[in-house]
Parts: sequence; C-alpha cells; structure tokens
Amino acid sequence: MISPAPKPLLAISMGDPCGIGPEVIVAALADESVRRQSDLFVVGDAAAMARAIAVCGSTLLLSEIASPGEAVGMSAACLPLLPLTNLGVDDMQYACPTPVSGDAAYQYICTAARFCLDGTAAAMVTAPINKDAMNRAGHDFHGHTELLAELCGTADFVMMLAGDILRVSLVTIHEALADVPGLINGEKVLKTIRVTHDSMRLLLDNPRPRIAVAALNPHCGENGMFGSEDDRIVRPAVEMACAEGIDASGPFAADTLFHFAAKGSYDAVVAMYHDQGLIPLKLLHFDDGVNITLGLPIIRTSVDHGTAYDLSGTGRASHQSMLAALRMAARMAVARTRPS
Amino acid sequence: MISPAPKPLLAISMGDPCGIGPEVIVAALADESVRRQSDLFVVGDAAAMARAIAVCGSTLLLSEIASPGEAVGMSAACLPLLPLTNLGVDDMQYACPTPVSGDAAYQYICTAARFCLDGTAAAMVTAPINKDAMNRAGHDFHGHTELLAELCGTADFVMMLAGDILRVSLVTIHEALADVPGLINGEKVLKTIRVTHDSMRLLLDNPRPRIAVAALNPHCGENGMFGSEDDRIVRPAVEMACAEGIDASGPFAADTLFHFAAKGSYDAVVAMYHDQGLIPLKLLHFDDGVNITLGLPIIRTSVDHGTAYDLSGTGRASHQSMLAALRMAARMAVARTRPS
Repeated sequence: MISPAPKPLLAISMGDPCGIGPEVIVAALADESVRRQSDLFVVGDAAAMARAIAVCGSTLLLSEIASPGEAVGMSAACLPLLPLTNLGVDDMQYACPTPVSGDAAYQYICTAARFCLDGTAAAMVTAPINKDAMNRAGHDFHGHTELLAELCGTADFVMMLAGDILRVSLVTIHEALADVPGLINGEKVLKTIRVTHDSMRLLLDNPRPRIAVAALNPHCGENGMFGSEDDRIVRPAVEMACAEGIDASGPFAADTLFHFAAKGSYDAVVAMYHDQGLIPLKLLHFDDGVNITLGLPIIRTSVDHGTAYDLSGTGRASHQSMLAALRMAARMAVARTRPS
Repeated sequence: MISPAPKPLLAISMGDPCGIGPEVIVAALADESVRRQSDLFVVGDAAAMARAIAVCGSTLLLSEIASPGEAVGMSAACLPLLPLTNLGVDDMQYACPTPVSGDAAYQYICTAARFCLDGTAAAMVTAPINKDAMNRAGHDFHGHTELLAELCGTADFVMMLAGDILRVSLVTIHEALADVPGLINGEKVLKTIRVTHDSMRLLLDNPRPRIAVAALNPHCGENGMFGSEDDRIVRPAVEMACAEGIDASGPFAADTLFHFAAKGSYDAVVAMYHDQGLIPLKLLHFDDGVNITLGLPIIRTSVDHGTAYDLSGTGRASHQSMLAALRMAARMAVARTRPS
C-alpha cells in the first residue's frame, strides 16, 4: 500500500494590514482544493485577520498557534495563525499604513523566510506590502524580492511571473527604461536563462524546458538598424546557454514572441525589462498571475498585485492570484522532493 | 427613398512580388462582404497576381484596367488590376527580392498614394514590402509610413495598430530602446494624443473618444524611483491635451493599462515605444491586426505582418489581416464623408 504523499507546509506572510492581503488570504483559505493540497499557516496579526474574516463573511475559525507544527493536519474549517504583532486600530486602518504597520509586514516576511530556511516550512507565500511604509519603518528595500535575497544571502535571484498560459522571467526588474540598455550584459542574461532553466526543469519535471529569449530592441534590432545589443550581448548569451545543454533560443522580436509562447511553443520567456514581460503576462493573467522568486534556496511565491487600498475592507478583492500563489508554492515544494 | 451609400474605391498596392502580398490580396478579395462594402483595384503586376490566383486555387478572374474608374461597379467575380510593371520570372521568385522587385513595390505605393491624393481613390491599403530591396533600388525609407509621409508632405503622422479589442498608437516607432527615452518629449506626446483623438473621433463617430496614455517607465516611475520622464514630460502633455478638451488620461503603468483597455475602459492607448504597444496588440490580434497611418491627408491602412517568405507560394498565409485592413479602410473612408 502506497502511503499518501506528505502535504507541504506553507507559511503565508500577512502583508500590509491596511491593504487587501488579509482578505485575499481568508478567501483563498476557504478553498478546499488548496487545503487538501497543503497544510498552511499565516504569520500575521490576530486582530487584522479576525477583521478580514468578518469582512469576507467567512466561517473560518481563527486558530492561534504557538509553532508551525501545530498547523499540520489542522481541519480546513480553521485558519491557523502564528501571531507576531498586536496591532492597535491606528496601525491597521484601511489605506493608512504607518511605520508600525510597515515594520509588522517586514517582521512577517522575515519570520516566514526563517521557517523556510530552517526547514520548518516547505515554502512561503507572501501577501502584498506597502514599500513606502516598510522604508519609513527603517527597512530600506525595493520590495519583497530584494529583502528575501538578503535574508537568503544570495544575489542570483530572478523574478518570474507565471500563469497557466505564460511564464516570464526578467533580466532587469524595477529600473527606469533609460537605465535598462546599460544594465543588460551577457552575464545577467545567461544567469537569468540558467536560473529559469533550472527552475522550469524542476517545476515542469522536464529535463529540457524550452526557454525563449526576447530581444531588447524592436524587430530584434533589424540587423543593427535599431540597436546592436541583441547581436552583441543577447545572442552570445543564448549561444552560451545552448552550449551548456540548455534548450534556449532567441533573441526573438518581442512583439510576436509572446504570441507564440502563449500558443505553447515555449515553456518560459526571458524578458529584458519589466514592462516587456509584464504587459503580456497581465494581459493574459490579470487575476491569476503568480510572482515567483527563482534562484533562492527557499521556495517563495506571491500574489502579483498590490495592496489595492481602494478595495481594502470591501471583501470584494479577487483572491485568484493568492489561490494561484498557494497552488504554485505547493506544486514547487512537491517538485523539490521528487528524486532527480 | 434613400439611395444606397456610395461604395468607397480602395487602391491596393501589391507589395513585394516575392512575398505573400499577392496571395493574401487574392484570398481577401474573394470575400463577398469586402466586395459589398467597397469597390477596389490592385496596383501591381499581372504575372505576379495571376500566379497568386493559381497558388490560392481561386476562381477570381484577373481583369486588367487602364484607369481606376473601371473598377467601380465591377463584378465580385473579377480581380481588377491596374498593371504597373511587367516583372520577369527572375524578379518575382519567392523569397528572393531584387532591386527590380524593390523598385516595383515602391512604384505601386507611389501610384496608389497619388490616386488618393488627387481624389481618384478614397483610401489605400498596402501589402507588405521588403525594405532592404526597396533601399537597394535607391529608395531610402525605413518603411511604408515614412515614404507615405514624404509623398503627402507631412511630418505629423502617427502609426496606429488596431484590432476590434485594442487600438494603440505610438509616440516613437522603429528606434533602439536606448534611444527611446531621449526621443520622448512633450510636443511629440501631445501631437500623438491629438492625432489619435482626431482620428478616433472620426472613426468611432464619438466626439470624445477616451485616450489612455501609457507611462514610459515601469509602475509609472513609482514617484520618481524608476525615472522621472512620466512626471516631467508625459503627465504635462496629458494635461495640455485635457485643457484642449480631449478626454486623455494617464500616464498609467503600462503593465495593467492594456488589460483595462482590452476590457473596454478606453477607446485607444498612446504607447511610448514600439514593443510597449505591439506586444499587447499582437497578443490579442496576431492574425487580424491592422496598421493605420494617422495624420496623413489620405487614408492608409496596411496588414500588420511582413512578407513571410517561409509561406510565400504555399497559399497558406492567413489573409485575416488583409481582410481587416480592407474593412478598416472602407470604414474610415465612409467616416470621412460623414457630416461633422
């Protein structure tokens, strides 16, 4: 008799108490398929989570736990919470983040990451934060990804956005467009291809995932007429990846590449800059896109939306991205335990 | 009794004889709805068109005409052709353009444009050309749009790509990404908004079409963290457009803007650069996108694909974009005759 596969234990960081994070967590944790797939617990605040349960009209029972292990095997009628803060009403007002709420969001992330680093949790899933509030609390990071890279002591992280139709990883992330061409170099392109390849190999259980690389310039530079970076930098990096046995191809003119990727010609696309990758991703996966940080020693997925203050407190925010992030984290955690 | 609206007369330039142009024209001209909507004629080459009819297995009868007027009221069983060249087999080999074929394509465009400028034709529709062959023939233009701007003596043209779901016009077109930020200025952004507004007002018969403007930088620069152009240049241009009574809004973060535009929140999007606009356009309208040159004194639409040499001679190229270009040209020609 084959024993059932163990469920991965997911740590969910509650994010900004003033945004929609607590609500999309509550809505997603009411989904039975997610609960069958994984054990999970929220690292957050009891008052904020209780309020979200009320706002969503949820029947979930808030169950405070003292350690992650208590969440294992817990009934799906419960919402396991590891409380880390005791926020007052002033620091959890909708749409009004404070340095205290910013520090709280920071602490949830650090704690969830530590549970992943020490093996207590199999993966972490993050709800949206307010970067400005986090910075005002003295934590100077561009966002989750950069903070997690520091917590994990790695510089080789890659941001991927994924849906069922399209998966895109980025060579550069949050940069002014004017800075992008100067930031593209062969090492970064090759690293992004490698990390994307390694992660897709694991996730898709496919020894040679098909990685397409987008050109920096329109029409791939049209033989140097509109920029030489694709010929000088991107193409050699693709060739080096191929020489390592990676099924990489490109650079391809970006305007048509995403059409072919969406039709299934490739397993993932490496994009040179934020909007190049995120415009097609959000067009196809506005509600159910997942943000994955590749290249970390831990598994981390996230919603791909922000705190949406215009919706916080309404219970109307879509929880599809949180659902997708939870499912993706569980899937990646199981993939990691597969014999290679 | 109301007399039926007169049909506009469309001039179709045959494009590169070595590409799929002749074939997609033949396939599109077999469509009865197109023929009911407009009279039309091809400016091109008899041997190339006869070959395309054979390749497509079409029953259309090639009917040579000496002047555009002969095409008016012609049976839909005919394909009216105004022959301009007598190409030999060497200059119409599939996938092998020559300076002679490049010059031929150039002449078709100039002649079709002249018929529009003198009022003989109501609009022109262009099949794809090979820019390199045209340049080798001594005609030094980046493409159709620049050539037509010169023929029409205007600098205020704007390239728009349109489908039923999305319409996008571009502030910059064929430029290296590194050059884009330096090319964005308030005058160009405002001009693009104005031309887009004027054209959409006419086309959609809507006095205040909703024009959304995409930000140059990701997250619209996130309060200056990733570039200041959106605050310094784009926003003031949008405000000036609004002051002129145009329903313009933005700049908006481009990664989510196209989602909202595709859902119908806007009638057109002004994009800052080629791939920003064409990635979403081609994702939604790969086969049926239309290229429109706005701001010219004449109406010009085009397929939004190239010569597709891998498909030339097979009869398998999709003619959806040519169909859409013909329909759009007819629609714009009728709109122009509407009392304002």
